[in-house]
Amino acid sequence: MLRIGLLTSGGDCQALNAAMRGVVKTLYNRLGDVEIYGFEEGYKGLIYGKYRLLANWEFSGILTKGGTILGSSRQPFKLMRVPDENGLDKVEAMKQTYHKLCLDCLVILGGNGTHKTANLLSEEGLNVVTLPKTIDNDIWGTDMTFGFQSAVNIATDAIDCIHTTAASHGRVFIVEVMGHKVGWLTLHAGIAGGADIILLPEIPYDIKKVADAIDRREKAGKRFTILAVAEGAISKEDAALSKKEFKEKQKRSKYPSISYELADRIKELTGQEIRITVPGHTQRGGSPCPYDRVISTRFGAAAADLILKKDYGYMVGIINGEITKVPLSEVAGKLKMIDPDCSIIKEAKNVGISFGD
Amino acid sequence: MLRIGLLTSGGDCQALNAAMRGVVKTLYNRLGDVEIYGFEEGYKGLIYGKYRLLANWEFSGILTKGGTILGSSRQPFKLMRVPDENGLDKVEAMKQTYHKLCLDCLVILGGNGTHKTANLLSEEGLNVVTLPKTIDNDIWGTDMTFGFQSAVNIATDAIDCIHTTAASHGRVFIVEVMGHKVGWLTLHAGIAGGADIILLPEIPYDIKKVADAIDRREKAGKRFTILAVAEGAISKEDAALSKKEFKEKQKRSKYPSISYELADRIKELTGQEIRITVPGHTQRGGSPCPYDRVISTRFGAAAADLILKKDYGYMVGIINGEITKVPLSEVAGKLKMIDPDCSIIKEAKNVGISFGD
Amino acid sequence: MLRIGLLTSGGDCQALNAAMRGVVKTLYNRLGDVEIYGFEEGYKGLIYGKYRLLANWEFSGILTKGGTILGSSRQPFKLMRVPDENGLDKVEAMKQTYHKLCLDCLVILGGNGTHKTANLLSEEGLNVVTLPKTIDNDIWGTDMTFGFQSAVNIATDAIDCIHTTAASHGRVFIVEVMGHKVGWLTLHAGIAGGADIILLPEIPYDIKKVADAIDRREKAGKRFTILAVAEGAISKEDAALSKKEFKEKQKRSKYPSISYELADRIKELTGQEIRITVPGHTQRGGSPCPYDRVISTRFGAAAADLILKKDYGYMVGIINGEITKVPLSEVAGKLKMIDPDCSIIKEAKNVGISFGD
Amino acid sequence: MLRIGLLTSGGDCQALNAAMRGVVKTLYNRLGDVEIYGFEEGYKGLIYGKYRLLANWEFSGILTKGGTILGSSRQPFKLMRVPDENGLDKVEAMKQTYHKLCLDCLVILGGNGTHKTANLLSEEGLNVVTLPKTIDNDIWGTDMTFGFQSAVNIATDAIDCIHTTAASHGRVFIVEVMGHKVGWLTLHAGIAGGADIILLPEIPYDIKKVADAIDRREKAGKRFTILAVAEGAISKEDAALSKKEFKEKQKRSKYPSISYELADRIKELTGQEIRITVPGHTQRGGSPCPYDRVISTRFGAAAADLILKKDYGYMVGIINGEITKVPLSEVAGKLKMIDPDCSIIKEAKNVGISFGD
Repeated sequence: MLRIGLLTSGGDCQALNAAMRGVVKTLYNRLGDVEIYGFEEGYKGLIYGKYRLLANWEFSGILTKGGTILGSSRQPFKLMRVPDENGLDKVEAMKQTYHKLCLDCLVILGGNGTHKTANLLSEEGLNVVTLPKTIDNDIWGTDMTFGFQSAVNIATDAIDCIHTTAASHGRVFIVEVMGHKVGWLTLHAGIAGGADIILLPEIPYDIKKVADAIDRREKAGKRFTILAVAEGAISKEDAALSKKEFKEKQKRSKYPSISYELADRIKELTGQEIRITVPGHTQRGGSPCPYDRVISTRFGAAAADLILKKDYGYMVGIINGEITKVPLSEVAGKLKMIDPDCSIIKEAKNVGISFGD
Repeated sequence: MLRIGLLTSGGDCQALNAAMRGVVKTLYNRLGDVEIYGFEEGYKGLIYGKYRLLANWEFSGILTKGGTILGSSRQPFKLMRVPDENGLDKVEAMKQTYHKLCLDCLVILGGNGTHKTANLLSEEGLNVVTLPKTIDNDIWGTDMTFGFQSAVNIATDAIDCIHTTAASHGRVFIVEVMGHKVGWLTLHAGIAGGADIILLPEIPYDIKKVADAIDRREKAGKRFTILAVAEGAISKEDAALSKKEFKEKQKRSKYPSISYELADRIKELTGQEIRITVPGHTQRGGSPCPYDRVISTRFGAAAADLILKKDYGYMVGIINGEITKVPLSEVAGKLKMIDPDCSIIKEAKNVGISFGD
Repeated sequence: MLRIGLLTSGGDCQALNAAMRGVVKTLYNRLGDVEIYGFEEGYKGLIYGKYRLLANWEFSGILTKGGTILGSSRQPFKLMRVPDENGLDKVEAMKQTYHKLCLDCLVILGGNGTHKTANLLSEEGLNVVTLPKTIDNDIWGTDMTFGFQSAVNIATDAIDCIHTTAASHGRVFIVEVMGHKVGWLTLHAGIAGGADIILLPEIPYDIKKVADAIDRREKAGKRFTILAVAEGAISKEDAALSKKEFKEKQKRSKYPSISYELADRIKELTGQEIRITVPGHTQRGGSPCPYDRVISTRFGAAAADLILKKDYGYMVGIINGEITKVPLSEVAGKLKMIDPDCSIIKEAKNVGISFGD
Repeated sequence: MLRIGLLTSGGDCQALNAAMRGVVKTLYNRLGDVEIYGFEEGYKGLIYGKYRLLANWEFSGILTKGGTILGSSRQPFKLMRVPDENGLDKVEAMKQTYHKLCLDCLVILGGNGTHKTANLLSEEGLNVVTLPKTIDNDIWGTDMTFGFQSAVNIATDAIDCIHTTAASHGRVFIVEVMGHKVGWLTLHAGIAGGADIILLPEIPYDIKKVADAIDRREKAGKRFTILAVAEGAISKEDAALSKKEFKEKQKRSKYPSISYELADRIKELTGQEIRITVPGHTQRGGSPCPYDRVISTRFGAAAADLILKKDYGYMVGIINGEITKVPLSEVAGKLKMIDPDCSIIKEAKNVGISFGD
């Protein structure tokens, strides 16, 4: 009999339940004799021993269900080695829970931060298999993460809605898309939504070029301009600051987010009135799209396959259309960012999208 | 032959095109011989003579299209009697355009502000028929406006998405729904989205009761609370201020909107971290829902019927399921607000929704 | 303490769960002390004593969930007085289950057939409150049923999809919409989807007029025609048959449904190739739309209110926007059909839709 | 100045307009001086010289629009060499139109059949660049075609809707998904929709194993079973027939499609009542999903890039995430089918899906 622990960590996204269903259905189907322990609220449940034995039926009907039936929380990696307020050693506590339950393997679903801790647990001798979950699609070692395409759909819907109202009123609109460090979500939603200007963390913008792009559209008789702006979009001036300087600038800022600052700058330069829309956390929610359901089911089945082969220490990913495994040590601590010279950026520029660079 | 002018005024919403299609298809179908002049950007086009003769085919395929093919703009009623920067008398200018084109009737699609000007034009002797358009459903003389149900769908989608992420993270979420003066949209989206607390302009809230409702949920083991908050939601203290005092308070406020202030107050009282989502202008956009397509087509057909009967000076509305006409003088200047003692509020309270009162 | 029985009967539809949640949340919220017994698969569960005590948490999160957590089945009214294969008197069996559980009231969610049995149980002395559920909107005594608007959305989506492909290929398409006896669903989806021809059970069609309408469109340069056809659409010839003759004709028919026969007749008369789409049971499924969630929550709260007042023997309905109660004896056995001279039909004809009459 | 011809051929699908917009926007953006001729209804327009010069604005706002602004038709490859009813040599006619218009290149959007003719035109000396369009994703030389993911979404929606009604009624449901020769669409929609059994053209089924899978579910207490069945699903017996024998069998068949025959066979073996849903042409229609909008925009930009480089005779495709070009001679006449031993099939089997083999 196998005893498996399951946990979902970090910001939630679509298809977490679908992925867990894939793991569990495969184990039941191929082995039958298996106990699944679900830890509540990510690593917190593993640290503090909050878990429950999950019944088979709990995985029925969750393929289409958003969120995570286990709950999630953010547990920063850099605090993992720092004792909690009661002096508890978190890593030791996680190991104890693992051994107390005699787990054969821990299946961890998470993003970048989660993978650092997962790698740590693996290095500490626990059997770990992970699945790449994030709306940001920024995990190293896989072409695609689940959650991404569903978030693209929601962000694109927002741009679609803004399109009709922008066109009716002849306005400039900013749609702020999630993504502090990487711009995949903004890039894809921006292209899909027909945004005229896309601003990404990876391509610092020149505010004058942004204003020029808006002016050019006006002169060409276009009645409106839509900007898809990543939360982490950054101007060339700000990108030139040291990390410390930039943080201090942000602290002093009166703006709730980049879009509000950007709107003021654009207004100064173009005289246009700007409207801002922030879909925010809606981008993480709702039912996973079919694409994410398929990929997460495949990931789940592949993770179960690794477990059945006792092949631990890997993240399941997809590269060139094939499901694959990547050593956790290769994944942890890396970020998959957009290369400003990659082909999709070139294609976007070719159809006339400005990146403000 | 009939010569008809068409204009869409005020904030745009879904089904404007569907309604215009209803008018025009009926006139072509029943009369054949008709010329349709479309004024650009609402009353602005009528004032400054910006219009074009619309071809029949321009009304094909627009039933499902969001926005307005004519463009729209806000032209405040209170400035209609004030000459423009070049000394132009706007009302006279509108009358001149009307007479110059030898129009038989002007069909105006708009909300509350629009209807004041429409009534003015009618009093000035122009033949006018209007259609009630707004996502707020706050127009006097009709049970329903087109745009409302589509906006309810979008706001509910946002709450649905927030639901899965709120449940996963055990958080308190505010979804800010459009509506400065009336709360119909927030009320319907709040009930439909399963919001736990709904705050409306018509029912000033006691912040302590809001905090209590959140605490009660937490004690009952619910991991999250969702608040649907109208843009114009107001605390009992603020509602007690004079209009002038309140405006001054708002001017001094550091918060971009009510949700941000509310979040701070709730955090003080409950210690909970609050997240805010503002779907904003997306609520006006996108394709109209089937409900709005049906009602706007019916309104359009009824408006054409009034024109064919030379029965001018009315807004088309729906009361108790029947399409009806209401004199413009009865509509103008009134607002259809929620009565805090009405049955839908009672039913919402019965299922456990708190209004903070 | 109250003891309440719940059952959902007949073809399922959207918002059944939402309505039950409304009933139960109100009872818990206003009374607290209540036991809810859920009968499985409609009247079958009541007859054969298949039920379970439902926990409060089972009603959390089901507002948006399609189907019914209790299951449903069709139990024809005309067989209720006929003993089953084991000689069991079904009506007596239902009364026994009711009394054995010491129920204070039975809450029944169903359509036309269901209401006949509900009325029978009421006449037999049981306390009964019902809720009007059906995608057909054909229940007497209420302007609206829940399920209807959600089904309109799905059928309209189908027509929307067909629209783009029909326009691309220049074809004639039939979309067959659910509704054997009444045409509300087809009428609303047809108007909302921009169908050119709508065929309803209440308005027998003349096949030549249908063909003429198609020819007229072709001559006017329109590249395609879309027909929204109710399952129960009927030709003038068939409508002239006696019920017996018509049944026999149907038995001999080689066509799986009316659309296939219609397609052959149209092809004969116009020479056009016809494509058929049958969305079928998808029209009953999926998450309820916001409109249905609101109305079903209101119905549920109102039903609970009747129970708390011990005011039994009614269906909850909505008339002129107000939630109301209607004696079961008035509801049972009647059908709310479309009057061919009603205003929505006239408005649809005015915009150019042909009903083949 | 460049003179470009555009045509869309074969069954329509989503994102045809988006792809053409990508081509044209890139040409305008990079070159400015370009004339775009649109041929009506695919090769028919090229043969019979039905075309029009397209204005730049005709490509605005069509990113999200389903269908094709040019119209489409099926022109079987095998008839291309056969003169038409008036003795016209079609290939010569196409060449004449091409030369008469002094085209620099013909951009052809189509599926498998279309590519055979495109290759023929290329061999005849015309400059041709093609884009892979089909909901079937069966074009050789590209990992993905546009239209596919949008169709997956629609077919999955249908299965989702059926899921709730099947669960409520405890029934066996067949959802028939498009795909006569290949099963990609059924496979992906089946996995995404949580189908229990998936039947594909590439994996002939044993009807007894299908019945067994249904029985196993019933014994395991599952109240329903959903089958996703490709139009071209085939039993082992039928797969053993010669092509001629199979065609004759089909001609004699009383069933409108495979699902109806399958339902009868399953009923015989299991005694269960089966319901059938055929979403049909809806799978080709509606607005393209964001995934398809991105990929088709990229394809369009890449096609324009080839034209600007005078690099003709290729289909644009995507392999391992990179946009690429494939010689038309390699694409024509091949079909990309599912390998029954590929990893996605294995993963699907691992989670418990039966393929009846």
